[in-house]
Amino acid sequence: MEITPGTLLQGINKPDDLKLLSREQLHQVCDELRQYIIDVVSVHGGHFAASLGVVELSVALHYVYNTPYDQLVWDVGHQAYGHKILTGRRDNFSTNRKYQGLSGFPKRSESEYDTFGVGHSSTSISAALGMAIAAKLKGEDRKSVAVIGDGAMTAGMAFEAMNHAGVADADMLIVLNDNCMSIDPNVGALKEYLTDITTSHTYNKLRDDVWKMLGKLPVGKHFTRDMASKLEAGVKGMVSKSSNLFESLNIRYFGPIDGHNITKLVDTLKDLRTMPGPKILHIVTVKGKGFELAEKDQTKWHAPGLFDKVTGEIFKKHYDMPQPPKYQDVFGHTIVELAEKNEKIMGITPAMPSGSSLKPMMEKMPARALDVGICEQHAVTLSAGLATQGMKVFCNIYSSFMQRAFDQVVHDVAIQKLPVIFCLDRAGLVGEDGPTHHGAYDIAYFRCIPNMIISAPMNEQELRNLMYTAQLDANELPFVIRYPRGEGVMPDWKKPMEAITIGKGRKIKDGVDIAILSLGHPGNFATTAIRELRTEGINPAHYDMRFVKPLDEAMLHEVFGKFNKIVTVEDGTIVGGCGTAILEFMNQHNYTAEIKMLGIPDRLVEHGTLKELHKECGYDAPAIANAVREMLKEKVMVAKSIAG
Amino acid sequence: MEITPGTLLQGINKPDDLKLLSREQLHQVCDELRQYIIDVVSVHGGHFAASLGVVELSVALHYVYNTPYDQLVWDVGHQAYGHKILTGRRDNFSTNRKYQGLSGFPKRSESEYDTFGVGHSSTSISAALGMAIAAKLKGEDRKSVAVIGDGAMTAGMAFEAMNHAGVADADMLIVLNDNCMSIDPNVGALKEYLTDITTSHTYNKLRDDVWKMLGKLPVGKHFTRDMASKLEAGVKGMVSKSSNLFESLNIRYFGPIDGHNITKLVDTLKDLRTMPGPKILHIVTVKGKGFELAEKDQTKWHAPGLFDKVTGEIFKKHYDMPQPPKYQDVFGHTIVELAEKNEKIMGITPAMPSGSSLKPMMEKMPARALDVGICEQHAVTLSAGLATQGMKVFCNIYSSFMQRAFDQVVHDVAIQKLPVIFCLDRAGLVGEDGPTHHGAYDIAYFRCIPNMIISAPMNEQELRNLMYTAQLDANELPFVIRYPRGEGVMPDWKKPMEAITIGKGRKIKDGVDIAILSLGHPGNFATTAIRELRTEGINPAHYDMRFVKPLDEAMLHEVFGKFNKIVTVEDGTIVGGCGTAILEFMNQHNYTAEIKMLGIPDRLVEHGTLKELHKECGYDAPAIANAVREMLKEKVMVAKSIAG
Repeated sequence: MEITPGTLLQGINKPDDLKLLSREQLHQVCDELRQYIIDVVSVHGGHFAASLGVVELSVALHYVYNTPYDQLVWDVGHQAYGHKILTGRRDNFSTNRKYQGLSGFPKRSESEYDTFGVGHSSTSISAALGMAIAAKLKGEDRKSVAVIGDGAMTAGMAFEAMNHAGVADADMLIVLNDNCMSIDPNVGALKEYLTDITTSHTYNKLRDDVWKMLGKLPVGKHFTRDMASKLEAGVKGMVSKSSNLFESLNIRYFGPIDGHNITKLVDTLKDLRTMPGPKILHIVTVKGKGFELAEKDQTKWHAPGLFDKVTGEIFKKHYDMPQPPKYQDVFGHTIVELAEKNEKIMGITPAMPSGSSLKPMMEKMPARALDVGICEQHAVTLSAGLATQGMKVFCNIYSSFMQRAFDQVVHDVAIQKLPVIFCLDRAGLVGEDGPTHHGAYDIAYFRCIPNMIISAPMNEQELRNLMYTAQLDANELPFVIRYPRGEGVMPDWKKPMEAITIGKGRKIKDGVDIAILSLGHPGNFATTAIRELRTEGINPAHYDMRFVKPLDEAMLHEVFGKFNKIVTVEDGTIVGGCGTAILEFMNQHNYTAEIKMLGIPDRLVEHGTLKELHKECGYDAPAIANAVREMLKEKVMVAKSIAG
Repeated sequence: MEITPGTLLQGINKPDDLKLLSREQLHQVCDELRQYIIDVVSVHGGHFAASLGVVELSVALHYVYNTPYDQLVWDVGHQAYGHKILTGRRDNFSTNRKYQGLSGFPKRSESEYDTFGVGHSSTSISAALGMAIAAKLKGEDRKSVAVIGDGAMTAGMAFEAMNHAGVADADMLIVLNDNCMSIDPNVGALKEYLTDITTSHTYNKLRDDVWKMLGKLPVGKHFTRDMASKLEAGVKGMVSKSSNLFESLNIRYFGPIDGHNITKLVDTLKDLRTMPGPKILHIVTVKGKGFELAEKDQTKWHAPGLFDKVTGEIFKKHYDMPQPPKYQDVFGHTIVELAEKNEKIMGITPAMPSGSSLKPMMEKMPARALDVGICEQHAVTLSAGLATQGMKVFCNIYSSFMQRAFDQVVHDVAIQKLPVIFCLDRAGLVGEDGPTHHGAYDIAYFRCIPNMIISAPMNEQELRNLMYTAQLDANELPFVIRYPRGEGVMPDWKKPMEAITIGKGRKIKDGVDIAILSLGHPGNFATTAIRELRTEGINPAHYDMRFVKPLDEAMLHEVFGKFNKIVTVEDGTIVGGCGTAILEFMNQHNYTAEIKMLGIPDRLVEHGTLKELHKECGYDAPAIANAVREMLKEKVMVAKSIAG
């Protein structure tokens, strides 16, 4: 189906085309851009509400700034669809997030207008400040702009960057896109502060009032000139220096202004573009603006999947049979079940109540399940603090976001042997979000840390059992449970939980000639591969490692005692991963075997469906079967010649 | 030499003893505690100025709070010597930082008064908040206090924690110990803001003035009651809600008060102890207080080594011959030398100008060498932003602190293939600072990331050549250079630099029977070991890997072609490190060999001298020689029997 952009939008192949339009025409451009995003995303999917909220900002920035000479950095990047459409990617925008299509995020290799690749939050101020400092050093007059949401503003690195920007004497604009939302509603003191500025007019209106008032004060006998000047100095001092959080950090603050008023935006940005030094423009927007249902339920419409743009019906597949649940929902259900029995259990999420499915617990037990905002570092050390008091904390962080809290896991949890439970959702390849979001590295980066327990369930029941095991008093160490994005394999998964011996794997199937050692959900790919191989007369043994650390040494002695050909498979980087752990074991115990390691290769894996990516990386079921055939080439040839 | 504490201090074996004293006696306790710290540190070494600055605070906190029931968290921990002495560790305080002695930092396993292990900065608010939330959940009235410096306050995770604390409704006190210092002088907008509050009285004094003024305003014809009430509301709104950065975050702010006034501290803390909710007490202290030289040069006296407490002379060893330089000074000298020729070069340090030796460049080229504050995350992404503009950035971060910026290296640098140069000082074991500071993991955590170049010089000249190579335009990838704490091996090191082929190792010595593959400075241990082994008729070959990634595959093919016994040695964790990379190569190319991997074992290594720790971990020269002998046991026995 051809999707036709509006008449003005059709003529905009680059920002220079936009600049040819009159200011009055910008209203129409905004309408057309918004409609085009709705048209494409409803049919092709993608992030939705965030880009609708910054249509006017996207148009205004490219209208006022001299992009790509001026550098525009979009924080996170969910909101950059308008930017992409305006910068030469209108016609292939329907390939967005598809295999070998456009990235869902700004990406340097995709366009010169994408000055900085994003995906994780709160990087934009640091990056834009670097660009601004470089411009100054090189004597260039290029401008840098960081567009950051109020959610992303809660992460510490945004504060670190502002602390530097306030003294760096570099020309940079921060646009604070305040919509009170992360994916879920934004939380924390900063959010309340911003709301306060915006809604109660505390700051701007009162500032104006006070100034006006001072001009009218009647100087006379009781109110001397000296008193007036003292009062003025007092109020001025507070207003200019201390009255605003950002101005406390020496960043000039402007706003709040309506981020959907294109004229006001253009005027304000024109003024700010030529103003030296660090400054922040606070704009207030509505996530999902212009699509009523999205405005009303912004979390649901963050990335709704395909939908009917007229009725708002979100299309879901219908099944005749019960389907396996998402792993995240198994987590979400199980933590409530456990917490009802163990009052020490708490749940922590850094801004992912919906994504992690902690939300049901937050609703049932609000004091024990906390959304702490986009701040993985704080989330981990807070969990450590809770653990010192005997709490059993399930700290749920996506694998790729856990990279943000690596030091806190090492320094505050592992070194102190605190039994915090880390549930790493989205571990392994994540699909359409691509390289910034693939949870490829956690096995490797955690495996080198002493005192860590690292596990991965092969299915829903295993996830439940691992969660059960981790919260028992018998566990005295940090316990990582990594599980993938998407659905499991067990329609009937709500079974009683039982304890697993820590560091104990399990034999799934006896076999001959070769052993497949799998970790986590790719064990199911192995099962499929084995089914196929058996029809060819090949009978591999299959072991589910379950734990990367500690390794099941007894099981591995059995494996190396019986087999000299081994295939390992995992949903993580091959370098330093589970296969490597098995290599280290083999070397330590002087075994020799031919080992073929399957997993994520040592290069960036782009975006696509999980199926496409598992295939590309060579660890889906056919690839596992092929690896086995390859290693048993001689046997296969003999079998064929006998059969022949 | 026996060091005798003062008469009151002699009687304080725990905080309860302190509580028996009158408030008047606390002055004497402070004097004695300060003197005891001076007496012990001058003779036994350690961090110095920080603890002198919080003598009064340490006494006041233990006097007012019910420790260890109340939870006291010291950020970083350099300043906790007074706390240790007051909490049962007075008499073995002379073992501080020595092998098997007291830790230089608070440590849970050392004392119940050490509620949270520290070392890295800015963790205290998160940890204390966790403790406060747990207390609330458990219905306990225990209090939590975080003591954090103005330097540590600049790291993002402190802000993350405050953003949460402001809405968490938990009883917690943050003591902001404002001395304008990190190890070097503190930098950034927050520091200026705090200085402004403290010195110009912007906040408190003007608040008072304005309030007084409002009471005196003459209401009449021109200044109506309505106007007055509007003005009052306006000023009140600004003062109470928006006038202070911390109050913006909904944390009640008190201060600034003189942190050396013990009476005022005790009074204030007593008030605050019973006040609900999150609050911050801003105290102003002088780092090094009471030791004049330390007050005057706080960076030098942060950890001065041994000194004469009367004359202030810092003892240095005197040598007849030129000595090898510290690696950090080789970095500091070389970056200036390179930057003089290549105007694109910049240097970035997160608060370690002295520790990294970037200071000389900061003095010579202030626009191109920046201290960005304690904020590794920002430092890395700022470097990435600079790199997008063609700058060649040497981002110098200690190995263990680089853990703080792991995601930024992955997400902002490696995924984008930006050629930022990371100089990882203090890589490997660091000695007296112990487990929080050992740079044990960087090889393993970086090796799994695509696009990374990871190198380690064996000596000063190699460090210079690697730095030279990394800044050439020919290098288009992130380039890690890890080097150790302390001195190198080349007294005469200022030689012309030359380019190294990236991924190329070097053969140090031909040999027979066995090969030693070393990475970085332990190559020198190998050289010593080989010298000894040759006297026994054993002639190992020796290869310097130089690069962990990419590996020198040609060299490794040569090694595995010639040898089936190999010893690897590195100053990093054995799990996932350089030896493992060699294992992976061996497996991939179907070689078989017996490999003995030496390095940091998979457990926490405590503090001690480098010599003690290298020995304990089994990779000093004698350990390498022993590993070789062990692997060549048969040959050694044959040789002995022939000799016999």
